[in-house]
Amino acid sequence: MQCCSGVKKEVFNGAVKTVLYEINEKALKLESEGKKIVRLNLGDPDLATPDEIIEAAYAAMKSGKTKYSSSYGEPKLREKIAELNGVETENVVITPGSKWGIFATMYLTLRGGGNVIIPTPYWTAYELTAKSIGAQAKLLRTEMENNWKVDLDKLEAMIDKDTRMIILNNPNNPTSKVIDPQTLNGIVEIANRKNVTILSDEVYSTIAFSKTKSILEYNGGHRHILSNGFSKTFTMTGWRIGYIIASKELVDKITRLNQITINNVPVFIQEAALKGLELEKRLATTIKDEYHERAKMATEVLAKAGLLFTKPDAPFYIFPKWPGLNSEKFTLDLLDKGVAVAPGTSFGDYREHFRISLTAPREEIKKALDIISGALG
Amino acid sequence: MQCCSGVKKEVFNGAVKTVLYEINEKALKLESEGKKIVRLNLGDPDLATPDEIIEAAYAAMKSGKTKYSSSYGEPKLREKIAELNGVETENVVITPGSKWGIFATMYLTLRGGGNVIIPTPYWTAYELTAKSIGAQAKLLRTEMENNWKVDLDKLEAMIDKDTRMIILNNPNNPTSKVIDPQTLNGIVEIANRKNVTILSDEVYSTIAFSKTKSILEYNGGHRHILSNGFSKTFTMTGWRIGYIIASKELVDKITRLNQITINNVPVFIQEAALKGLELEKRLATTIKDEYHERAKMATEVLAKAGLLFTKPDAPFYIFPKWPGLNSEKFTLDLLDKGVAVAPGTSFGDYREHFRISLTAPREEIKKALDIISGALG
Repeated sequence: MQCCSGVKKEVFNGAVKTVLYEINEKALKLESEGKKIVRLNLGDPDLATPDEIIEAAYAAMKSGKTKYSSSYGEPKLREKIAELNGVETENVVITPGSKWGIFATMYLTLRGGGNVIIPTPYWTAYELTAKSIGAQAKLLRTEMENNWKVDLDKLEAMIDKDTRMIILNNPNNPTSKVIDPQTLNGIVEIANRKNVTILSDEVYSTIAFSKTKSILEYNGGHRHILSNGFSKTFTMTGWRIGYIIASKELVDKITRLNQITINNVPVFIQEAALKGLELEKRLATTIKDEYHERAKMATEVLAKAGLLFTKPDAPFYIFPKWPGLNSEKFTLDLLDKGVAVAPGTSFGDYREHFRISLTAPREEIKKALDIISGALG
Repeated sequence: MQCCSGVKKEVFNGAVKTVLYEINEKALKLESEGKKIVRLNLGDPDLATPDEIIEAAYAAMKSGKTKYSSSYGEPKLREKIAELNGVETENVVITPGSKWGIFATMYLTLRGGGNVIIPTPYWTAYELTAKSIGAQAKLLRTEMENNWKVDLDKLEAMIDKDTRMIILNNPNNPTSKVIDPQTLNGIVEIANRKNVTILSDEVYSTIAFSKTKSILEYNGGHRHILSNGFSKTFTMTGWRIGYIIASKELVDKITRLNQITINNVPVFIQEAALKGLELEKRLATTIKDEYHERAKMATEVLAKAGLLFTKPDAPFYIFPKWPGLNSEKFTLDLLDKGVAVAPGTSFGDYREHFRISLTAPREEIKKALDIISGALG
């Protein structure tokens, strides 16, 4: 089933925004009244940015790396990213967060019409961006009961002469599902045959529990585009740094857009990210291990409570289903019990789902899950 | 005289980009060969970011201010800016550099057609942004011989039913001229009568040598928009932080655009900017005094060499004229003599002008000016 007609979508998005806003406002209000809220509603890790990364930023500031710099990003950082991803430096551009990379790519590709296919459940920013730049978003529904698999026949049928892009989020927010290699092969085969570009947002891949096959493995001709960032792997969400790997042509275009918009990511932040990459193995392992433990504990509790879900392949999110649930009412009511989660409708037409972010210490998550189970029971 | 027809402009901009690029590439190449280049071609101050500002950023990082945060900006910083500018907090939004604020404002105001009037000489980003979003830029020429004054009759004649915006840069880059109050009164009167919004980029105003009348002084109904930043006043160019002051409606729209693009300026950078504002009087005075000395020295040397120019009202730039000059050839040749400046054609149709940035220590500027005088003589 495809979702949704234009009008329905507008209303639907209006509702999403209101409920998310309401939850946030209500959480803040309750906290200001002295109530303790366990916040499992955002993808912002509770772990601190590692000290080594902070010290690298400080050292760079002190040494005068506080000037205008290249809109491509610093050569050293681009080279390191290119090396780690098996591409050339000219294929890498540094962006202030992967969000900016995604916006810039969509802005340059979809301006002046065209449509983009987005499997759901999805990160709302993709669709909001499409709308902002005047492109049409075509939503391709996937279902938990089918293990969140993209139906290749439906995908192919959805592509028309105005389709310019397919956006994949691999691993996915909110399901934490990695696309299996066979399905990914199929998606790429269709995209290549139909001359459509894939933008693959792989921001959760480095810390995934299962191997994620990257779009770069299919990318001899640089037709497809990788978006990635440092937020999740190095707990640097608020630092705003990410990157796009694409054809030299698109990298040059993004750089020209950077020149009239964000100009450059602060060099001291790029130095901090470079330090992160040097320590990647250790830092990513620490994060992965901690989140693996949290996920194990959470899935046990949720299964016992009778919730339906797929096993997460990556940190942060579980997207359980409770048949018959009105997730907006449920998540608002849950706040009064001291737990903030996100309603399923924030990620598409998934009223019976809600998203739990495992971004709190284990004992807090445990407490919150017990409250959730109680509220459903 | 208005400049230019569509086709001519395209060619003209192509040329600008090439020469600026050539100068930069050539400067880098010469430096890599061991040659010393005095770089007076950018608006990036040679002074370091004050230690207090760096320490404020470091303290904020250490205290965990490294998370996602509001797309409006931090309340404390917005409040302080509101207080300093005599507006409400709801009229302030924090942006990653004033460039982003200008892009966001133009994107939200000019998308889907319309035109914008830009007096020249001008900062190229205004026109490149207009082009990127599909708006028409109408250039209103001003002349050194008329003290760079906007001709009010010409301005009024240029406004048509599709004109949505006038961009002022006050003080101006590259002329360092402050708009005199009488002319500004006239511009605002026309804009109000014709129902056109003014976007006033006042990034050089805090450190101007003469009092700059702000657009906010005319802004009872918040029709007009102020863009400002921290780069120039606090030598924080590479930190990327600025702000827009506008109607609550536009501030909310920019924030929604921030949510799908840059998300937020890192909180530790906002804390650094707040520290800057607390020290503003001392820091701005230091910078102003140093640049005033440089400007005094430079104008003496340039006058003696027979160059024509208007006395700078603000730091950083002088935009002298040498009748008959081919500024692109001149600036490229000058590089071989060890001095980088920007050709007049980078700021509009000003082939007989070039821009000197006083962004080097005085003795270096002196040396460079002697070389310039020699090259012209």
